[in-house]
Amino acid sequence: MKKSLSKTPKGFLFSTIEAAIKKPGRKDLALICSEREAVASGMFTTNKIKAAPVKLDMKRIRTGRGQAIIVNSGNANACSGEQGMKDAAEMAALAAGALKVRDSRVYVCSTGVIGAPMPMERIGPKIPELVHNLGKSTIDEAAAAIMTTDTFPKVVSKSMRIGGKTVTISGICKGAGMICPNMATMLCFVLTDADIERKALDSALKSAVRRSFNRITIDGDMSTNDTVLALANGMAGNELIKEKSPAFAAFTAAFSAVAYGLSRMIVEDGEGATKFVEVVVKNAKTDSEAEKGAFAIANSMLVKTALYGNDANWGRLIAALGYSGITLKEEKVDILLNGIKIANKGLATGRDKEANEKLRSKEIKIVIDLGLGKGAAKVLTCDLTEGYIKINAEYRT
Amino acid sequence: MKKSLSKTPKGFLFSTIEAAIKKPGRKDLALICSEREAVASGMFTTNKIKAAPVKLDMKRIRTGRGQAIIVNSGNANACSGEQGMKDAAEMAALAAGALKVRDSRVYVCSTGVIGAPMPMERIGPKIPELVHNLGKSTIDEAAAAIMTTDTFPKVVSKSMRIGGKTVTISGICKGAGMICPNMATMLCFVLTDADIERKALDSALKSAVRRSFNRITIDGDMSTNDTVLALANGMAGNELIKEKSPAFAAFTAAFSAVAYGLSRMIVEDGEGATKFVEVVVKNAKTDSEAEKGAFAIANSMLVKTALYGNDANWGRLIAALGYSGITLKEEKVDILLNGIKIANKGLATGRDKEANEKLRSKEIKIVIDLGLGKGAAKVLTCDLTEGYIKINAEYRT
Repeated sequence: MKKSLSKTPKGFLFSTIEAAIKKPGRKDLALICSEREAVASGMFTTNKIKAAPVKLDMKRIRTGRGQAIIVNSGNANACSGEQGMKDAAEMAALAAGALKVRDSRVYVCSTGVIGAPMPMERIGPKIPELVHNLGKSTIDEAAAAIMTTDTFPKVVSKSMRIGGKTVTISGICKGAGMICPNMATMLCFVLTDADIERKALDSALKSAVRRSFNRITIDGDMSTNDTVLALANGMAGNELIKEKSPAFAAFTAAFSAVAYGLSRMIVEDGEGATKFVEVVVKNAKTDSEAEKGAFAIANSMLVKTALYGNDANWGRLIAALGYSGITLKEEKVDILLNGIKIANKGLATGRDKEANEKLRSKEIKIVIDLGLGKGAAKVLTCDLTEGYIKINAEYRT
Repeated sequence: MKKSLSKTPKGFLFSTIEAAIKKPGRKDLALICSEREAVASGMFTTNKIKAAPVKLDMKRIRTGRGQAIIVNSGNANACSGEQGMKDAAEMAALAAGALKVRDSRVYVCSTGVIGAPMPMERIGPKIPELVHNLGKSTIDEAAAAIMTTDTFPKVVSKSMRIGGKTVTISGICKGAGMICPNMATMLCFVLTDADIERKALDSALKSAVRRSFNRITIDGDMSTNDTVLALANGMAGNELIKEKSPAFAAFTAAFSAVAYGLSRMIVEDGEGATKFVEVVVKNAKTDSEAEKGAFAIANSMLVKTALYGNDANWGRLIAALGYSGITLKEEKVDILLNGIKIANKGLATGRDKEANEKLRSKEIKIVIDLGLGKGAAKVLTCDLTEGYIKINAEYRT
């Protein structure tokens, strides 16, 4: 088995191959397989338009079991009708047959252009070789094979000791827009050798996603293909983790750290982005109001362009809060930009020059104190630049 | 009185002057005054952060009466606290004093940077001269004085015959984003010599705004200063228009045409825009679902960049509908781009090359047929280009 640079949980094998799905020249088909059948959990796009593989996986995840994931980039298999559903099922069946595992334990993920038929004549014949090569690729190579406009592969691993056993959680993901229906899609696979109950895995996944992938935005568009899948094969040999186990909190924390690390990488790789931006809203009436306010700021094109221009333009921030629909008292709002208080109780402090200077940094932290309650939320985003326009205006040509 | 190029309703006079509010070199203070006190109606931003003049006008409009509007560009007088309220009131009082009209009949509008104190030391001393020069400017010059990043002044006039009398409705507006909290703001003034009841004017205004200014978007951001004010001075001498009058429908239609024409100009002048885009959603479950779907498309950065790139990327359109929250059946959706059916019943028609070619036009019409009910809506927008980024990243510097 090829040595991976990133730590990999026990019993997970990887394979990648070139199927020339969109065009030749790069590996665009990947397989992840556990030696043993695993507990599985998943979360999927809430977009009403769902890609064929999402529909397939949403059915299969109900079993709470899984063993393999076959992933292609270059074609989203979305808006592809009956034929798309057949193609997704066929990808799973071909992989299951060659792997000699149960068909229903194989998940399928696709990412790429919407509304184009899947080139099954090129994908199908490659699957036996893909399976044959299992173990010859590393987790890092799998992360590279699922990239689209990503500029770097995204892998995060955490290990912990649970009752004398080492448990590892590794995640890979792709996506350079949170949500880029045409070219991207966020796909994430979290693999662990932990022995954990299905209910506990579901709960850890939900909690991790809520504060990671559901708290990032590049452009406010939501994909038809977004998928997060978790497989736990139990091969670490730890005592079974249940929701009430003492180890559950540590497992969930490590799982959340992996998810947060990956989601942060997605934002850092945001299309055309030059700055990584944290938006913290605190002392809101509720957590959910804080989140709503933070997203209004993070999605505002005027805010994102001001950050790009190193412009401490707090009027755009407070205006975004104003239209977000949350409870707000103008005369209580404090705003800090990279530590400089630019607005105090809703009024300008006049520290524009200092703040503009601080905004030259590649990392921006916006803190809004609403002075109303105890609600808080953090959303990650990036600036909006000519690079984003260029990538998305020219993507298909 | 200076001859205006655009038709002007009887009894309205204009004046403009340079007050060097943001910087010297252009006229940035305008006055509109009716010879007679007029019936007044207004609509204001729903942003919870409201500029001081918006707060002032919202109180005064309750009287249903008005005679003058004083407008400045260069400073929004928003997030300016107690002092901002005093400054707005002082602008009105100085104008009222010099005009010898009742203070409460003068409205104030400001547009420009948020969170900066008003330079009253420069504005105040100019007001007597502004009033003295009343009648020396045209409506076109008033439209020019209220511009910020607008590249052309916006004036639309309509006349009609009501019971043997000529009634004229003229509107001017500014705004190169629907909603640009920092630099712009949409301001619109509709002036008419019609004799019309307050309730009828309110109703005509509401109906016109719903299908014009409330159906456009440049960037999805909402201003703290958006204002539409209508003054009707009755000097046409027509029989009083009431909601039940036969003339009411004609008046409302003309009023709506003025508002629609102005809102269309705002989109045409969208910051950095190279294309004017109509998004029509039809056969939705309801009108309001159609509107929601059309706005999701019109606000999608991925759609707007694709249009800029002449890319018939219908996947981005259907994905935006999918996350808009409206009722949707993928297998019923038809999509037309400038007359080319690019998707039929949710599936690609393969006419991409033809459609890409048609998208090279400066005017784009997107028609989405949801095939569900009878709801319909049209939203106007523009493409998203490097020009928008440039304008908004560099605006304050």
